[in-house]
Amino acid sequence: MAQELSALVFDAYGTIFDVHSVGRLAESLFPGKGAPLSAAWRTKQLEYTWLRTIMGRYEDFNRVTRSSLEWSLESLGIDADDDQKRALMDEYRKLTPFPEVRAALEKLAETKPLAILSNGYPEMLDAVVDHNGLRPLFRGGVLSVHPSKRFKPDPAVYRIAEENLGVTRTLIGFVSSNGWDAAGAKSFGFRVFWVNRAGQPVERLGVRPDATVRDLGELAAQVAPVSA
Amino acid sequence: MAQELSALVFDAYGTIFDVHSVGRLAESLFPGKGAPLSAAWRTKQLEYTWLRTIMGRYEDFNRVTRSSLEWSLESLGIDADDDQKRALMDEYRKLTPFPEVRAALEKLAETKPLAILSNGYPEMLDAVVDHNGLRPLFRGGVLSVHPSKRFKPDPAVYRIAEENLGVTRTLIGFVSSNGWDAAGAKSFGFRVFWVNRAGQPVERLGVRPDATVRDLGELAAQVAPVSA
Repeated sequence: MAQELSALVFDAYGTIFDVHSVGRLAESLFPGKGAPLSAAWRTKQLEYTWLRTIMGRYEDFNRVTRSSLEWSLESLGIDADDDQKRALMDEYRKLTPFPEVRAALEKLAETKPLAILSNGYPEMLDAVVDHNGLRPLFRGGVLSVHPSKRFKPDPAVYRIAEENLGVTRTLIGFVSSNGWDAAGAKSFGFRVFWVNRAGQPVERLGVRPDATVRDLGELAAQVAPVSA
Repeated sequence: MAQELSALVFDAYGTIFDVHSVGRLAESLFPGKGAPLSAAWRTKQLEYTWLRTIMGRYEDFNRVTRSSLEWSLESLGIDADDDQKRALMDEYRKLTPFPEVRAALEKLAETKPLAILSNGYPEMLDAVVDHNGLRPLFRGGVLSVHPSKRFKPDPAVYRIAEENLGVTRTLIGFVSSNGWDAAGAKSFGFRVFWVNRAGQPVERLGVRPDATVRDLGELAAQVAPVSA
């Protein structure tokens, strides 16, 4: 199927950038609580995006991320001051890409336009892309859900990528390591690659990804094989 | 505020019935894995209700519960046969109410109509209510989200209770131990009692419950105080 795709669209958080890289700072600020804080924060962040979309009470991802940090700190009994909270929030602008990401994206960008479609608030998303010098690789755009006032996996969100690329959904390959995002993208009509980094079971949401890869290196090998 | 309420509507799973009572059967079937299976199952069950609502791919709560069980078993590396899965699913028809529930509901039912509004599939919800002999206490009805083809906290779900009771939302007290359900109900316009059994932080979803109680006993003491 790979050869027929006109563009590739990537999820950002968890797929390109390792959200748990905030755990290192969290651990240095609150020894012994870095991993549980990072885990609770990410879980609550996703919950809030889903719940606010269903309730019709959208607020941007920057605010959702801050609200979920507040909840997680209180839940773990961590008494953080404003400077510590600001430092943790700032980490979202400096998240580290997974090790194989840069080389894989460089290889893929030679074959077709790449884009990002992310829950991230535009300014927050631009910051992490630029911090890592990845902007030139995404000539299809760095797109945020923000104009739709909804979060993934709402179909209105995936439509943003289709419209911005000007490519019909069946010719767009969508890449996410979040199983539920892969399911939402497949339900919308994209051709979906699920990056199953953690060896998780496939989500039972009535649709299945078209292909499953271990990381973006394996994706690049499949979609942009070296020609002899 | 209590005296002005015309009816009380209760969430079922987690508020009246203890969903973690399935953990005991799970532990007897898969020693050492009862608690993690029960926790993973409940978490995934809720995730699937939210994700399917956002994706516009409703399937009933019985099927969602079965799908989330399958995911959780695979995630924990538990090899369960069909009889074991059936036994676990059957537990949802025999969930135990929390200890204080019956006496509290009896007291409250003397003051105003009580109803249930639940994600549960009607037949599954009726089964657990009748198994525990609670039906006579709910003369306002045992209502399922099923006709709306959405799950909580979609506003369309809460409207089902308003329409069935024929009472305007501001005169309905809504009782849930799920913080996100309390937020959804408050966002809709109910007067909300959050039953914070586990001492959790309040959810940061832009609305707050009108009152927080420890359990239904405390609710009954507030809403139906013994008159001298």
